[in-house]
Amino acid sequence: MGGSLFGRQLQLMTFGESHGPAMGGVLDGIPAGIPVDFELLRREMIRRKPGEKSFESGRREHDDVEILSGVLEGITLGTPVAFIIRNEDHKPSDYHDLKRVYRPGHADYTWDRKFGFRDYRGGGRASARETTARVVAGAFAKMVLLKYDALVYGFTNQIGTAAMEDDYNFQVHKIEASALRCPDKIVEKEMQAVIDQAVKEGDSVGGMVTCVVKNFPAGVGEPVFQKLESVVAQAVMSIPAVKGFEIGRGFQVATMKGSENNDPYINEDGKIRPASNNAGGVIGGISSGEDIVIRAAIKPVSSISQQQTTVDADGFPVKLNVEGRHDACVVPRAVTIIESMVSLALADLILQQEINKRFQE
Amino acid sequence: MGGSLFGRQLQLMTFGESHGPAMGGVLDGIPAGIPVDFELLRREMIRRKPGEKSFESGRREHDDVEILSGVLEGITLGTPVAFIIRNEDHKPSDYHDLKRVYRPGHADYTWDRKFGFRDYRGGGRASARETTARVVAGAFAKMVLLKYDALVYGFTNQIGTAAMEDDYNFQVHKIEASALRCPDKIVEKEMQAVIDQAVKEGDSVGGMVTCVVKNFPAGVGEPVFQKLESVVAQAVMSIPAVKGFEIGRGFQVATMKGSENNDPYINEDGKIRPASNNAGGVIGGISSGEDIVIRAAIKPVSSISQQQTTVDADGFPVKLNVEGRHDACVVPRAVTIIESMVSLALADLILQQEINKRFQE
Amino acid sequence: MGGSLFGRQLQLMTFGESHGPAMGGVLDGIPAGIPVDFELLRREMIRRKPGEKSFESGRREHDDVEILSGVLEGITLGTPVAFIIRNEDHKPSDYHDLKRVYRPGHADYTWDRKFGFRDYRGGGRASARETTARVVAGAFAKMVLLKYDALVYGFTNQIGTAAMEDDYNFQVHKIEASALRCPDKIVEKEMQAVIDQAVKEGDSVGGMVTCVVKNFPAGVGEPVFQKLESVVAQAVMSIPAVKGFEIGRGFQVATMKGSENNDPYINEDGKIRPASNNAGGVIGGISSGEDIVIRAAIKPVSSISQQQTTVDADGFPVKLNVEGRHDACVVPRAVTIIESMVSLALADLILQQEINKRFQE
Amino acid sequence: MGGSLFGRQLQLMTFGESHGPAMGGVLDGIPAGIPVDFELLRREMIRRKPGEKSFESGRREHDDVEILSGVLEGITLGTPVAFIIRNEDHKPSDYHDLKRVYRPGHADYTWDRKFGFRDYRGGGRASARETTARVVAGAFAKMVLLKYDALVYGFTNQIGTAAMEDDYNFQVHKIEASALRCPDKIVEKEMQAVIDQAVKEGDSVGGMVTCVVKNFPAGVGEPVFQKLESVVAQAVMSIPAVKGFEIGRGFQVATMKGSENNDPYINEDGKIRPASNNAGGVIGGISSGEDIVIRAAIKPVSSISQQQTTVDADGFPVKLNVEGRHDACVVPRAVTIIESMVSLALADLILQQEINKRFQE
Repeated sequence: MGGSLFGRQLQLMTFGESHGPAMGGVLDGIPAGIPVDFELLRREMIRRKPGEKSFESGRREHDDVEILSGVLEGITLGTPVAFIIRNEDHKPSDYHDLKRVYRPGHADYTWDRKFGFRDYRGGGRASARETTARVVAGAFAKMVLLKYDALVYGFTNQIGTAAMEDDYNFQVHKIEASALRCPDKIVEKEMQAVIDQAVKEGDSVGGMVTCVVKNFPAGVGEPVFQKLESVVAQAVMSIPAVKGFEIGRGFQVATMKGSENNDPYINEDGKIRPASNNAGGVIGGISSGEDIVIRAAIKPVSSISQQQTTVDADGFPVKLNVEGRHDACVVPRAVTIIESMVSLALADLILQQEINKRFQE
Repeated sequence: MGGSLFGRQLQLMTFGESHGPAMGGVLDGIPAGIPVDFELLRREMIRRKPGEKSFESGRREHDDVEILSGVLEGITLGTPVAFIIRNEDHKPSDYHDLKRVYRPGHADYTWDRKFGFRDYRGGGRASARETTARVVAGAFAKMVLLKYDALVYGFTNQIGTAAMEDDYNFQVHKIEASALRCPDKIVEKEMQAVIDQAVKEGDSVGGMVTCVVKNFPAGVGEPVFQKLESVVAQAVMSIPAVKGFEIGRGFQVATMKGSENNDPYINEDGKIRPASNNAGGVIGGISSGEDIVIRAAIKPVSSISQQQTTVDADGFPVKLNVEGRHDACVVPRAVTIIESMVSLALADLILQQEINKRFQE
Repeated sequence: MGGSLFGRQLQLMTFGESHGPAMGGVLDGIPAGIPVDFELLRREMIRRKPGEKSFESGRREHDDVEILSGVLEGITLGTPVAFIIRNEDHKPSDYHDLKRVYRPGHADYTWDRKFGFRDYRGGGRASARETTARVVAGAFAKMVLLKYDALVYGFTNQIGTAAMEDDYNFQVHKIEASALRCPDKIVEKEMQAVIDQAVKEGDSVGGMVTCVVKNFPAGVGEPVFQKLESVVAQAVMSIPAVKGFEIGRGFQVATMKGSENNDPYINEDGKIRPASNNAGGVIGGISSGEDIVIRAAIKPVSSISQQQTTVDADGFPVKLNVEGRHDACVVPRAVTIIESMVSLALADLILQQEINKRFQE
Repeated sequence: MGGSLFGRQLQLMTFGESHGPAMGGVLDGIPAGIPVDFELLRREMIRRKPGEKSFESGRREHDDVEILSGVLEGITLGTPVAFIIRNEDHKPSDYHDLKRVYRPGHADYTWDRKFGFRDYRGGGRASARETTARVVAGAFAKMVLLKYDALVYGFTNQIGTAAMEDDYNFQVHKIEASALRCPDKIVEKEMQAVIDQAVKEGDSVGGMVTCVVKNFPAGVGEPVFQKLESVVAQAVMSIPAVKGFEIGRGFQVATMKGSENNDPYINEDGKIRPASNNAGGVIGGISSGEDIVIRAAIKPVSSISQQQTTVDADGFPVKLNVEGRHDACVVPRAVTIIESMVSLALADLILQQEINKRFQE
């Protein structure tokens, strides 16, 4: 059936192979009358981009977004917003050597099993470049959420063994002030050391991203299969390299007791709210009005400089030496993509709740 | 839009409040010609049922399934399979005291915020009894998967701090031989001790479930938003009390290196396959033919015997004493529900792949 | 994928074979807080029922609706409303003779080609009894529409050659005062004569139904594939025996000129509206606030008393004598079913428009 | 929710305003391994294009299609096929006068009521130029259908009162040999006279299109809401200017008897098939293997040269003189668009049937 459609009320269909003419998407269901924040869009695209930093590959991607529809005089029309990002011209020969090799950790083998055929050039649709379209759409989703005053931000809370404590009470601007998107200066240094070591060894490292949503209204999420955490999990687990997802206390709940984990309600100046937020902003699949807090585990990049042994499509052994520069760690860049998918999932749910709200008036 | 619909090819719509007339569901898209294994169905229902064991509440639920359509002479017709499970008669007065109380950890408050109104009797649709419909449909999904020789089974790998080592090479029959669904006798004893302690304290404990799928064919899953892990994550995270999901090495990848985590390919007697399975059976969102291995974190039950302090719908403080017997630990029962949701997600994807297969012939 | 799901915001999944245990459906996405009009529901079920009238078969169907979920104390909960209608007990032997016969005009042959297998008892899921679930759900859709003051009603405007003029300015109560649901007494008599003649000949006759929606708000419908007329057409064309659909002037437009057919706008006491309504209440796929007017063509009943020649599943010729009494004309009963499907389609679209409305405030 | 998504297995999302940067679409779910017939695609685009003929406007549209993804070396990859068609540069001033006028028969008024805002330039998304994306996607759908040897073609069977007899037994090449896409030379002349008269009067005329599908396999279509005729009706009724739809005998069934309309089965050299095809290739919502025959009524073009009286957005009366040249009749061009939508609907259903087929083997 294809799987390039995300969402129910706010629906995104994306497309593009990394070495085809363009990446892009169409976002349908975005309400009319939303002013498009082009500066936000531009900033998000820069945040996703591979940079010049020591841990990144130095590849330059041209990420100029062209909006093809759905916007008139800077305002959304209520019709689909389509956008494309052109890919650079590539010589197919650049990738010819990999045409029949099954690279470890990459989707070459499984796509061949699925389609009997695949775009071997730079990973095709399985390339991380696919995420550009998510970031463009995510920027529009953030614009929807901002209409509700909801703010989404993520940060790198772990790279290798260098990990922040489980806390997100810091000033948000510290995230982008950090090359690694880690707001804790001391941990950031440890993270950088981990990356430097990996680069030296021709290896790569994994990590973890936390994403927080502030001011998200209570009452959003749809029982029983479209619970908020269920929809956000699907969104985040669809990002390449993500291997784990949790909300609130997440895997810690395995060792907790009910008396610790339960969030009792209090009356705070006439407003009912949970006294604690172990749940991570969601109870019974529906938002509680508290901060939504999720975490995602990111695997180490599959392309490494070390020689690897694998086989080709005929089953012959191959010594694989991946040429060129490669990211040793993509966790800081994953922050933007995770924010984008969380935003798309939540904008979708928040719009769905309008109907219930109307009927309660 | 409602959220009681799951799946795309194999679509399940469920319904029911715990104290309404019945729970049930309709499963559409199941192919014609599948013999219905009524014994499997019966067994699954028993596995989900709260029992007489020390860690469970002793509530008896009547879980007789009535199939209303879609089956003729023991064979699926290709039309929707509808089923209901009657609820017991309840005196509404039994729950009257809780009508306006916001129980910690329960969905009372958030549902009021969403709908302005809720079924206060035993949790209504937010009750764990909702999962009966998942188990019935899951049994049908298992029948579909068995057509492909794929076998789904789960087990309790952690309760509180009592945890199995990260290994699933044991004889499958040991799971059901264990009251706690833990195949490791020694760990099972530790788990029982953890539960006994919680019961003594009037408290509850969380845990973790592992679910494995053997013989699942390669090539299943849809890029990019319907990746196998993405669809399974949505399925599992929609289960009440699940707070975390991981596949393969999961959160361990944060501290791994690419050279460790990558699964290189080998040629095993003419068959190409990954030499290791850190990925948990899925690469680039598509199954590799290796075992699919996922884990889910289950929070401690919200209803505990200890007195709790909370507020009611008017914001007045309430001392909450939950009457009756309560499960101190639902992890062993969650095994069945997780298997059901994993089976529904995978049956949905495996049927979708038929179309690609046909075009490759 | 199955095809028993209708709608996007308001989603109905139906089930049931005519001689299985029950027919029914689940309606998800209905907002919380709507008082259930049980009297309306009861009345709709009676309107659909085969009666004692000369043109009908005299079969009695037991159409007691049991609501299983989604309603508490007479108010919708916002959760799925499930309902069942039990079928009578049948002796399978009653239908044994038809097990392998391909009845002309019935779905026996095509279902065999699709599923390789079918429920041969009374048409199975292809029986007109399937429409009971549509009528129950349609009653709920009417309750949603009544919240917007929109009123849906249909009538028989043609049976055989006996046809009303193209006009719907009559008192609505006249419809139900007529056994044939024809508000024009003179035409009704002609219709009855057509039916009487068909009964005498052991034959059946077709006809046409008009359905009108009054007070439907402007601005509803979604461009470009979910245009109001597109969604309503799908709804109506999914009803058994419907072979044609039109809106406004419908097929008459083939011979009209732009200057005749265009509906210019006027300012009526400060309110802008079309001066005429050739369009039938919809322009560019979106409602104009004028009456929505659609028509559907109903084929003559396939089961007739005359002997017919056909073949069985092995290709052997068969003389078919359909036993029992049969409706000579189902057009009057189709009125209720068409109203139901129009109501479901429009309730779905009207709820979708809430989101746009919210963003315009 | 937006309405720019069509289909379930084969999903098309389109976008574009007529005077925005581009029109386009994304087609997801098309199987891998289909050779792309670029010549077919080019031909279809030319067929849709407004031409130089007497009855058309003489506007030139640049309809060069750029394919952005989903195709490698001329073969579909199984990933989404995205395509764009650039619009010409327009001076916004060209349309400034119409910015606030509610043109009769156009969607200006209803879109304002829906979105509170609209793209006033040339109709925006409500322009017939929207259909370019349908034709591109329709060409791909035809490629899928050709894999099953199914052939889709349409023709103009009526313009004004000039109508072909109800027959489609002619040589297919005669359609495209006719400027009006009418294979009957004599009727074509009458049609041309009707158009000439309309042009002289500064008016426009409506008409009717028949679409036939040959060699479509039996067993396709999904009960009960996704019946073949139901899905095709939605597809065709979503085309701008279509006001009526029928299949087989269509509205004629109103005056037919069961004994006439029923199609009895015969055994033709060992193959079971209906002896007649009043049903138009579909029984009980599922294809019978006979020709699928549908018809659509097309309203006269709303833009006419005669002066019209209407109001503007403030309710002030306006004398409307539509400048420029306008099509007096779009029926011949509608043929291509109707073929496209029929092809998309049928390709969607034919792919869905693969799953049932697999399970019958």
